[in-house]
Amino acid sequence: MKELTYNTEDPIAALATGWEESAIAVIRTSGSDAIGLASNIFSNKGGLQKAEGGTIVYGYVVDPETGERVDEVLAAVFRAPKSYTGEDSVEFYCHGGIPAVSVVLSALKKGGFRDAAPGEFTMRAFINGKLDLTRAEAVHEIVTARTARAHSLALNRLSGGLEKRIDGLKKRLLDMLSSVELLLDYPEDELDGQAGEYPLDAKAVSELCADIGRLAESFKAGKVFRDGVPVALAGRTNAGKSSLFNLLLREDRAIVSEVHGTTRDYIESWITVKGIPLRLFDTAGLRASDNPVEAEGIKRSGEVIAEAGIVLYLVDSTEGLNEEDEAFISGFEDAERLIKLWSKIDTVPAAGEENDADIPEGFIPVSSVSGKGLNDLEDALSEAALGRKGLEDDVVIDSMRQRDLLSRAKEALVNTAAAAAEEAPLDAAAMELRDALDALGEITGEVSSADILNNIFSNFCVGK
Amino acid sequence: MKELTYNTEDPIAALATGWEESAIAVIRTSGSDAIGLASNIFSNKGGLQKAEGGTIVYGYVVDPETGERVDEVLAAVFRAPKSYTGEDSVEFYCHGGIPAVSVVLSALKKGGFRDAAPGEFTMRAFINGKLDLTRAEAVHEIVTARTARAHSLALNRLSGGLEKRIDGLKKRLLDMLSSVELLLDYPEDELDGQAGEYPLDAKAVSELCADIGRLAESFKAGKVFRDGVPVALAGRTNAGKSSLFNLLLREDRAIVSEVHGTTRDYIESWITVKGIPLRLFDTAGLRASDNPVEAEGIKRSGEVIAEAGIVLYLVDSTEGLNEEDEAFISGFEDAERLIKLWSKIDTVPAAGEENDADIPEGFIPVSSVSGKGLNDLEDALSEAALGRKGLEDDVVIDSMRQRDLLSRAKEALVNTAAAAAEEAPLDAAAMELRDALDALGEITGEVSSADILNNIFSNFCVGK
Repeated sequence: MKELTYNTEDPIAALATGWEESAIAVIRTSGSDAIGLASNIFSNKGGLQKAEGGTIVYGYVVDPETGERVDEVLAAVFRAPKSYTGEDSVEFYCHGGIPAVSVVLSALKKGGFRDAAPGEFTMRAFINGKLDLTRAEAVHEIVTARTARAHSLALNRLSGGLEKRIDGLKKRLLDMLSSVELLLDYPEDELDGQAGEYPLDAKAVSELCADIGRLAESFKAGKVFRDGVPVALAGRTNAGKSSLFNLLLREDRAIVSEVHGTTRDYIESWITVKGIPLRLFDTAGLRASDNPVEAEGIKRSGEVIAEAGIVLYLVDSTEGLNEEDEAFISGFEDAERLIKLWSKIDTVPAAGEENDADIPEGFIPVSSVSGKGLNDLEDALSEAALGRKGLEDDVVIDSMRQRDLLSRAKEALVNTAAAAAEEAPLDAAAMELRDALDALGEITGEVSSADILNNIFSNFCVGK
Repeated sequence: MKELTYNTEDPIAALATGWEESAIAVIRTSGSDAIGLASNIFSNKGGLQKAEGGTIVYGYVVDPETGERVDEVLAAVFRAPKSYTGEDSVEFYCHGGIPAVSVVLSALKKGGFRDAAPGEFTMRAFINGKLDLTRAEAVHEIVTARTARAHSLALNRLSGGLEKRIDGLKKRLLDMLSSVELLLDYPEDELDGQAGEYPLDAKAVSELCADIGRLAESFKAGKVFRDGVPVALAGRTNAGKSSLFNLLLREDRAIVSEVHGTTRDYIESWITVKGIPLRLFDTAGLRASDNPVEAEGIKRSGEVIAEAGIVLYLVDSTEGLNEEDEAFISGFEDAERLIKLWSKIDTVPAAGEENDADIPEGFIPVSSVSGKGLNDLEDALSEAALGRKGLEDDVVIDSMRQRDLLSRAKEALVNTAAAAAEEAPLDAAAMELRDALDALGEITGEVSSADILNNIFSNFCVGK
């Protein structure tokens, strides 16, 4: 194996929480002598050295050069192999804020730790056999998840859901390969009772191929949950775009605002519909502008609509469809991306029941005043994002690496199935099966190169 | 005592780290039944219930309504009184990121915890006698400190430096008050050997008064470390302001960039000089603009200069002083706020040594190219911020509340000293001494009202 970017023997340290003013910050360390080195910069040196794994010691971090107490902390001690990395580890719970974190990190560096690279803790956990690669990747996904549902899917992978699925597929592959290799090693005339029987069942190969293909396909859904889907609101001026935008945001805000201290600006136009993260763009503002850059605004609206995964096209029910609307709708190429809304149904002057006959076919009636139609709209958004069947399986992948490896395995099995159907010579089939097995092994990390590992872990945040 | 804003019996929970994508987030809980309630939403219920204080249990947080595992966590158990608040407490170390934190907080709320108010953990620590008020206030200051020196001053207060100082002052006050009250309770003719001796030593009273006054005065320095000092760069176009600005920023950047992941934009123009946080404003950009709002730019430059705590005025040494420079300098009212710089000394075409005689009196020669003069400039900045003597004492206050109470105590002692000098009747002196003692008691929180507490703790971040 080529060398990893970083020496895995060094004692490492990194901030594992954000660089914000906060009550607490966590600084993580790991390494075979992490406890000894940490105790050298700790006021209660003996207490830390003797601490059992899984216990917490109170004290001060001390600058080893000046002897000055630089912060009051709790130090949690973990002893190998019962730690995140599988090595000895001390986690410091110090005061939040940049100066506190800086002085503690500086004391740790003077004490012999080096800055950890992004993902280095998880990479060590992988190297030490604490996690397979699918779980290691989930560590990153869980931190960057945008919705509770995305978090839950990543947690499932972290808990080994994907690893188990891959292991099941590998077992079926291995059974096939064994029976093929048995015949290759011992020509059939040497074996009793199996004479003449072709060792591969074309149907079983095709089923396995289909199962691998379905898992590869789940990448689409995984990507929806990981990256979200851009949704553009379109329609003529005064079609009710801004009201609907605000309604969708407000519905979601109610959830966000339960949470104290949310201050990330970009959340403002992210909404969550049935656990799916959607990035909502209102093209209204771009068009309604009175200043001379209006032409630019219209151009940008067009770009937003072109790039959106889903377009909500609003028609004001009190005005009805006109030529401009019909031109937009008929000119829209990908019907599955388009959701047509019949807006402002609250203002239709109906006596009692509204008249459904008035609603053009394929339009969903909505009211931003009463919220009527919001459920239907959410169903339509979910269907446009995930397809009619929604999410049928809790095990989905969201890593392109995994998708590509599954596709490679699937292709090898397509070839195997063709060979089996023709009862072709076994050498070629065995090679294909071995390749499929290698691809699955690479997913979980049984087969992996330093390049792959460096690439996977370099996307992580520091401290993971 | 009036009621506190929040019921101190409720089990409380809050995020103690920032709302950012990060490896780890810490969610803190406290309350007399915190361990029981937390174990109800924990996969390893028995393990958490039986855990000793200061130990860590691995498991999953479980939504009590759905039974779903919502995050993989470490739970640290603290048992009263050995906890931050003095109550039973569980801290959850869960995955960072908004969804992970949201689902864990939501499970805690369903499990019987309520959101903690800002500062509520520290308020409970105060109420339960874990901290006096000077230390409780330092908890907030330590988190919001801008430089390592400011952090160190706050850590000193947190460790009880100010509390001890106040206790010492109180003891001296109490001794004086006792001797006065002894005479008031037992008129002098009843006491042997003390007949005729006035119980207050005017010199001792004055010394105590001066010590209290010095501590009150340290508020100025404390405020410098807490809030920083705005520093404006001024001078004619091409005097070298932007180069110096960049040099000062770069010097500091070298320190900041040692630290991975620093992304807070506002740091960009904060610099640290001898541990003092300075907010650097370059007025150059405002003036050099070519567009029609130049007049507005000059007006804003003037405002920045007027509001700055320190003004660095640059004169290009290759051009020399002109009338505009002399008008600015002579028109500047507060000489202590003005630092005059003789810039671009690198470009003076001197053969060998530069000629110091060329430098006008009171100017510091600097070169943004070679960095020459930077040390002298830093000395001058420190002196302008803190005075010629710098920081003489590690115990400084940075709370206006403490300053006002110290001033009240000082005033009472000024009156006492006057009474003592005249050997005035003792009743009035006793009243003044009691008032001074009350003021000092209020600083540490022996004497405190609900209003004061609510006011102090409401400035804290949530989770502290």
